Amino acid sequence: MKIKVTIKDVAKRSGVSISTVSRVLNNSKPVSPEIRQRVLEAIRETGYRPNLLARGLVLRKTNIIGIIVPDISNAYYSELVKGTEEISNMYNYSILLCNTYGELKKEMEYLNLLTEKQVDGIIFMTTNLTEEHVRWFKENDVKSVFVNRHIEGMDIPYVSIDNYNAAYDATNYLIELGHEKIAYIGGPLSDEILGMKRFEGYKQALYDAGIDFRQELVRVSKIGIKSGYEAMGDILDVHKDITAVFAANDIMAIGAVNCILDRGYKIPQDISVVGFDDIPFASIIRPALTTIRQPIYDIGAVAARMLIKKLNGEKLDEISVNLPYQLIERDTSAKAKKRRK
Amino acid sequence: MKIKVTIKDVAKRSGVSISTVSRVLNNSKPVSPEIRQRVLEAIRETGYRPNLLARGLVLRKTNIIGIIVPDISNAYYSELVKGTEEISNMYNYSILLCNTYGELKKEMEYLNLLTEKQVDGIIFMTTNLTEEHVRWFKENDVKSVFVNRHIEGMDIPYVSIDNYNAAYDATNYLIELGHEKIAYIGGPLSDEILGMKRFEGYKQALYDAGIDFRQELVRVSKIGIKSGYEAMGDILDVHKDITAVFAANDIMAIGAVNCILDRGYKIPQDISVVGFDDIPFASIIRPALTTIRQPIYDIGAVAARMLIKKLNGEKLDEISVNLPYQLIERDTSAKAKKRRK
Repeated sequence: MKIKVTIKDVAKRSGVSISTVSRVLNNSKPVSPEIRQRVLEAIRETGYRPNLLARGLVLRKTNIIGIIVPDISNAYYSELVKGTEEISNMYNYSILLCNTYGELKKEMEYLNLLTEKQVDGIIFMTTNLTEEHVRWFKENDVKSVFVNRHIEGMDIPYVSIDNYNAAYDATNYLIELGHEKIAYIGGPLSDEILGMKRFEGYKQALYDAGIDFRQELVRVSKIGIKSGYEAMGDILDVHKDITAVFAANDIMAIGAVNCILDRGYKIPQDISVVGFDDIPFASIIRPALTTIRQPIYDIGAVAARMLIKKLNGEKLDEISVNLPYQLIERDTSAKAKKRRK
Repeated sequence: MKIKVTIKDVAKRSGVSISTVSRVLNNSKPVSPEIRQRVLEAIRETGYRPNLLARGLVLRKTNIIGIIVPDISNAYYSELVKGTEEISNMYNYSILLCNTYGELKKEMEYLNLLTEKQVDGIIFMTTNLTEEHVRWFKENDVKSVFVNRHIEGMDIPYVSIDNYNAAYDATNYLIELGHEKIAYIGGPLSDEILGMKRFEGYKQALYDAGIDFRQELVRVSKIGIKSGYEAMGDILDVHKDITAVFAANDIMAIGAVNCILDRGYKIPQDISVVGFDDIPFASIIRPALTTIRQPIYDIGAVAARMLIKKLNGEKLDEISVNLPYQLIERDTSAKAKKRRK
């Protein structure tokens, strides 16, 4: 057990008072360059490490940002957290990671826990924003930034892409390739942004092209590769003549691709698939997935930057940031050809 | 801005002293059931939240575990962190996540930062354990658990699998399928466990089967899908007659699979591929990857459990835990057939 070096030891060695050492550490009041030099040397020599926990008490600052994610093992979120972590670190903040499996109970527990831990701010992600969340954020004065979510009437900044237009563009791309019988696979519609907005974009694109919307070509369920596989199977059981699928997230798109191949159809010759997100694996699977590219890393980075600006009392240029998206054409999409019914 | 409720407000409302409220909060001294009841009600009514930061100062405990990983967007680590997070949460610890890109400089910065933040303990992962790390852990009295790494002569617990034997088994499996010209692709050999141990297992299996080891069939480089792709390409440029590849991690195995397919070879008919790790995507790519299954989630969970035992002063049953591994046969491996030179 090493003996803990304290601020007293530093003061003694540098021949100044404790409060002078404190000034140097906290940049709280001016100190002459010569004294500063002496104190810094004494810190190095003694190996003194300021107790940030205690300092946090005084400054009411922990330099910790809490981040709440549905599933860190989902490639979308791990890429996003990487962006958050990198920017936070650059500004001397650390990341307290909270994994919720999208469960409301865990989300609420973590919100309370992070407040108790006195984190400086929270980056919040959920797949289902409820009244309970809204109430919590209204009742608790915690600096926060949302990702892909927004509470109407509250000035909590959020970062996202335009999910409605992106889904519209993805569907319209398939329509322009000549597809008409286009299935939709996606997450729950209770998820306003990742579910409903994308679903609405899909419907509107069909409508604008004069194609009838058919509920039986739609399957929504919990996001997962397996659920994407099963949703695709359900549709193919009945509708063997679909020529395209818009899967509103890459995870489910990859499940759908596997299901289509396992049933002996060719991609893209028989059925085209367009995903959404461009997770790292979208370009790695074969055939490589045509998809909507979200700047996932950037979303995490911008969320962190906005929160840190808030923490520093800087003015945000805008409360909401929609980052640009892009359709990436790869090997799962092609012109429609007539197929057997 | 809400007015902060303090312990004073709780004391006032419940008609007891501040120290009595503190006793209830910290379970430090006996309090009558009736008084406890009154205090807990007052806490609920006032919405008081104990300042864990201040409490941490008193108890010298933050209930935070620092976790240092090379790359959270790598599926291996995100799955592992999920296991760590879940177990930690179960025992009321939170996870401070530090992403290092495997860079020594960032690793050292984070080790110091976590100590300054007074985390209760550290779970440490690196792809390259150096003298500088060893020195740090010798000089700093921080409770730690290593994953896949071990410092000789120090009693820091670690969790891993038997990498040497697992690599031996993977190679031997290919030999038993009749393969003789078996390439090796893997991470840097400077990485003692994930590089060297696996490489040695490969060599020993060849040796035991009476197959000559050939350095020109070996490519090691930084772990990545692209580097796996390139390593495979380098080997195929010269050695078109290999019939199998042992890729010592799934990330590089997936790169190798893509390279082989892009060059027009069939898997497994022309070339068999065996990976290592069984990351979630190993079973999802087509053809699905034959690989060594590491219990990745469990490794993270056990590491967290061991650290928490240490933090509680409980005795560990053993300082090192090697979890069981398993060869999972999927679609990338088959009996060798004679191929053109």
